[in-house]
Amino acid sequence: MKVMIDLCVIPLGVGVSVSEYVTACQRVLEEAGLEHQLHAYGTNIEGDWDEVMSAVKRCHEVVHEMGAPRVSSSMRLGTRTDREQTIQDKIQSVETKLSAD
Amino acid sequence: MKVMIDLCVIPLGVGVSVSEYVTACQRVLEEAGLEHQLHAYGTNIEGDWDEVMSAVKRCHEVVHEMGAPRVSSSMRLGTRTDREQTIQDKIQSVETKLSAD
Amino acid sequence: MKVMIDLCVIPLGVGVSVSEYVTACQRVLEEAGLEHQLHAYGTNIEGDWDEVMSAVKRCHEVVHEMGAPRVSSSMRLGTRTDREQTIQDKIQSVETKLSAD
Amino acid sequence: MKVMIDLCVIPLGVGVSVSEYVTACQRVLEEAGLEHQLHAYGTNIEGDWDEVMSAVKRCHEVVHEMGAPRVSSSMRLGTRTDREQTIQDKIQSVETKLSAD
Repeated sequence: MKVMIDLCVIPLGVGVSVSEYVTACQRVLEEAGLEHQLHAYGTNIEGDWDEVMSAVKRCHEVVHEMGAPRVSSSMRLGTRTDREQTIQDKIQSVETKLSAD
Repeated sequence: MKVMIDLCVIPLGVGVSVSEYVTACQRVLEEAGLEHQLHAYGTNIEGDWDEVMSAVKRCHEVVHEMGAPRVSSSMRLGTRTDREQTIQDKIQSVETKLSAD
Repeated sequence: MKVMIDLCVIPLGVGVSVSEYVTACQRVLEEAGLEHQLHAYGTNIEGDWDEVMSAVKRCHEVVHEMGAPRVSSSMRLGTRTDREQTIQDKIQSVETKLSAD
Repeated sequence: MKVMIDLCVIPLGVGVSVSEYVTACQRVLEEAGLEHQLHAYGTNIEGDWDEVMSAVKRCHEVVHEMGAPRVSSSMRLGTRTDREQTIQDKIQSVETKLSAD
């Protein structure tokens, strides 16, 4: 089963700057070879369910290893059986409609 | 690694009533033997990371099997290395402070 | 327009314990006279859209006033035009189905 | 108070394709003159709290007016009192760290 998620990882107990933790998670995704796209309040990730969730777990582990005693993430998860749809497809489908005005 | 999540599963393409799908997910959690607590906009679930995520995957699969071509969930995920904390602990810690007023 | 939300407020830069901030938010909801129900990973709140959102804003303000330089919340928001549904209705509708097994 | 949010609006009871509803919400944001950035699983929006929340309400209203009897959104909301930070700043801060490897 393919899944597209949107993940935002928040380390607690380590101050207000979270960019080094977000950067570490980006590296986890690159090492996992998963398609992903950073935005200002999370990251889109797509792939096989088990591979994606394994990367999410690794993100939590890495952020703890960096010193955060607590991690709270928020995530959206989308699956569909009617057809495949990539990160690019989803953005394209809205942009096409917008430019048709 | 232990995790506490809050999961809200939304089936798309099947009408406005989602309670039968939520009910099916509750059964998945019971069969998995995971501690869980339903509320009006999601379900708290706690347990071992892999067992919890396996149940989340099973929820998506079951909702698809029931006929929903698309499923979009939102989830919070909390892990901590400083100490263990159950669903009851978290609620208790706020209620104690509230009653101390 | 009525809305039901599920709100989880996370203060950053103040350590790992967040229960005193959650408690302060519970007081905001009580002072606002809004129907609400705490769970282990957030709070269900229902009422008129503007009143509910005004309370969410007040929660952010209060948590900042208590010393958190940064606040990151996650929220689900549900509105419907087909019928009214309370926090109790939603839970009841699943529990009735579960007990019918 | 400034806020940065990440909003994902899901119409229920209207089939599996949601792109026309997402497109309508993009127009709401443009008409409101709010800085925003679409991604594959939501939209980043930044601005004054009241203006941003007013646009979120308008999105729900518009999606109902288009025929969806039920709307369920998920949203992240970030506020900070220590400094201002734009959508571009947040992405830049991670990309700078990544490219420093």
